[in-house]
Amino acid sequence: MTYTVQIKVMPLKELLDPQGKAIAGGLKNLGLNSIEEVRVGKNITLQVNAGSSGEAKQIAEEATKKLLANPVMEYYEVSVN
Amino acid sequence: MTYTVQIKVMPLKELLDPQGKAIAGGLKNLGLNSIEEVRVGKNITLQVNAGSSGEAKQIAEEATKKLLANPVMEYYEVSVN
Repeated sequence: MTYTVQIKVMPLKELLDPQGKAIAGGLKNLGLNSIEEVRVGKNITLQVNAGSSGEAKQIAEEATKKLLANPVMEYYEVSVN
Repeated sequence: MTYTVQIKVMPLKELLDPQGKAIAGGLKNLGLNSIEEVRVGKNITLQVNAGSSGEAKQIAEEATKKLLANPVMEYYEVSVN
């Protein structure tokens, strides 16, 4: 069966996020002053062939560790729909 | 009150996603053959000052329309935590 797995990869809270800071500046210039902080990460959707949703999650976590996220700068969350 | 709003911005299903295709190729090279399709988008977290979660969502949708998503190539989902 094919499972859809969502992976959210975000910059660690301790680190600066220059892209987020730039967007926050842009939103202020557009008059949206009530937005205080912006952080930008990746959202990756995988279609995984697996026997169960647990197996699909395991495969997605392996892919994340091997290629999709850099644990020095990012944290990630894997969820199977 | 400050609300945390998550915005998921993904490439439209009808369009090619070259970054996703490249990642899919990389995963195949790593031996992860059960992953069939990869699509990559953005995940944006906002801290919004608002009177209610409905107002926070409205502000985030305005920000998304004005700056964060390109409706010609992307669709988005806004959710308030």
